Amino acid sequence: MSRPKNDTFLRALLREPTPYTPIWIMRQAGRYLAEYNATRARAGDFMSLCRNADLATEVTMQPLARFPLDAAILFSDILTVPDAMGLGLYFAEGEGPRFERPLRDEWAINDLTPIDPWGNLRYVMDAVSQIRKALANEVPLIGFSGSPFTLACYMIEGQGGTDFERVKGMAYGRPDLLHKILDVNARSVVAYLNAQVESGAQALMLFDTWGGALSNAAYQEFSLAYMQQVVAGLTRERDGQKVPVIVFTKGGGLWLEKIAAIGCDAVGLDWTVDIGEARARVGKRVALQGNLDPTILLTTPEIVRREAGKVLASYGAGTGHVFNLGHGVSRVTPPENVAALVEAVHEQSRIYH
Amino acid sequence: MSRPKNDTFLRALLREPTPYTPIWIMRQAGRYLAEYNATRARAGDFMSLCRNADLATEVTMQPLARFPLDAAILFSDILTVPDAMGLGLYFAEGEGPRFERPLRDEWAINDLTPIDPWGNLRYVMDAVSQIRKALANEVPLIGFSGSPFTLACYMIEGQGGTDFERVKGMAYGRPDLLHKILDVNARSVVAYLNAQVESGAQALMLFDTWGGALSNAAYQEFSLAYMQQVVAGLTRERDGQKVPVIVFTKGGGLWLEKIAAIGCDAVGLDWTVDIGEARARVGKRVALQGNLDPTILLTTPEIVRREAGKVLASYGAGTGHVFNLGHGVSRVTPPENVAALVEAVHEQSRIYH
Repeated sequence: MSRPKNDTFLRALLREPTPYTPIWIMRQAGRYLAEYNATRARAGDFMSLCRNADLATEVTMQPLARFPLDAAILFSDILTVPDAMGLGLYFAEGEGPRFERPLRDEWAINDLTPIDPWGNLRYVMDAVSQIRKALANEVPLIGFSGSPFTLACYMIEGQGGTDFERVKGMAYGRPDLLHKILDVNARSVVAYLNAQVESGAQALMLFDTWGGALSNAAYQEFSLAYMQQVVAGLTRERDGQKVPVIVFTKGGGLWLEKIAAIGCDAVGLDWTVDIGEARARVGKRVALQGNLDPTILLTTPEIVRREAGKVLASYGAGTGHVFNLGHGVSRVTPPENVAALVEAVHEQSRIYH
Repeated sequence: MSRPKNDTFLRALLREPTPYTPIWIMRQAGRYLAEYNATRARAGDFMSLCRNADLATEVTMQPLARFPLDAAILFSDILTVPDAMGLGLYFAEGEGPRFERPLRDEWAINDLTPIDPWGNLRYVMDAVSQIRKALANEVPLIGFSGSPFTLACYMIEGQGGTDFERVKGMAYGRPDLLHKILDVNARSVVAYLNAQVESGAQALMLFDTWGGALSNAAYQEFSLAYMQQVVAGLTRERDGQKVPVIVFTKGGGLWLEKIAAIGCDAVGLDWTVDIGEARARVGKRVALQGNLDPTILLTTPEIVRREAGKVLASYGAGTGHVFNLGHGVSRVTPPENVAALVEAVHEQSRIYH
């Protein structure tokens, strides 16, 4: 298995020289694309789309057909692991993911065991294999999962985006129970991501969507420690190729030094962080991924080009930057603005390499 | 006009010695108190409560009757200024504040002019005067407003807590229009807060609830610059007493050095920041206010005492700390946990002074 023809994404993550700054976009296969909406309508609901390897491959490839992106990302959800534990993932219209059977009883927590990724998550591995074939080694494929803490938020609350009163109540009142959940999650995520690598994923990303809701001390104890456990357990090389790992805590800008120290290759940044300042803080240790405010993609191609140029200039000369948004692309984004972004990053970044 | 009998709050803001760490609680007069709910039911809706000086005084005093808090805060809303501009503030049940007539047209923005606080905001000044009388100089009274940017978010979006697509679209596409709004807001807030001081407010606070949704550069241009303009225009001394100013950007932990440099006396911290690290960064320049995670108040008195102790220990010895939550108190907070918090802060902090 050789490196992909376009390996700029992998090289930037490993801080090796590249001719330009590579770019991919969180949620690049998504509702801002008419062809995605058409495929999803055929699939029925979101999880049916994830579970069908043909359709998951189709939507994964859609943004690559439109834009010269430097990486593909598995089409799936961050919450497949707790779904495989039997909690019943579903998507209420316009409401984000939810679980039918959140963890509300101590016995249910004590009964949790790590999932076998080759069991009822085999559909993910099938999708990874099939997407790799479809990619024909043009660009690398990113595998991913939610972080142990982010999974726990949904498992305990039943949904995201709340004040996390139940999760934090457990963190402060019954930390033993939360640690039990997080340990099962971490071991499950390790097995799950390693199975993705075995199936063909060439880089991995941990999405810690809700770690930023914690206090500094609680973040380290309940989110970062378990991402460190995950990173330590991952397959980091396969067929002679390194498999870089990206860790992204939304709202984690205060903690970049601590995140950069857990053994990952790259740290994702949301848009609140100045990427040049982030580089000064941790750029000798890790690559950085990010961090244009996704709302900028709702303006015009001209503004998109200007603002992308500012992010590139802030990072400055040299490798170690993977361009991305600071959060997933909005469903109301005009695709022509994404086209302008990808072109601008590719063209404007050459002077820095 | 002499200093209040208990002036620990004012002294801590000015970094003068105090025998213990003073505490007040954001939204201390609120729905977690049965007596508040009773008064509010008599008033009808929230704005009727704000507009009635007798009732606003009554609810301002309620938490002080229960807990030995070191400051009172005017009972009002952060959005009274745009309401006075005619945008029609209302509160949808369980939805947070909204405006009936958000700014959607360029002519409406060009027509904006600074408000006269002695016009249709006189009800606020009446409440301030009456609360001061009720306080009988026991503890100081805090006046406040939303920050110019936070007001603009609600004025443009019609509500808070969104992705701020309209505000940011204006920031990137028509910055001239946003600057126009922000300048009117800043001049209005200056006049409004100075009128509160003239009416008896003894400290002032700017609530920048949504500045943390901006990128680093946009925050400085659209939020911080206008808070600096406000701070520069405020009455900082009255009747021989200094009037300290607190600036609080939720989610602004990355930018503490910049916030501390705008001329305020104190910086509010949300709970994601380690207050000891914040002190190391800016404690020589400003006092710090915060920053217990409000969800800790949903646990038990024992846990509240333990976690409050951690915040005190993190700040360490010496003055310059006003204890508070990192965000407003939750409506489902048991009042006995607030009692435990106030007592714990008063008792445990003595060793640091």
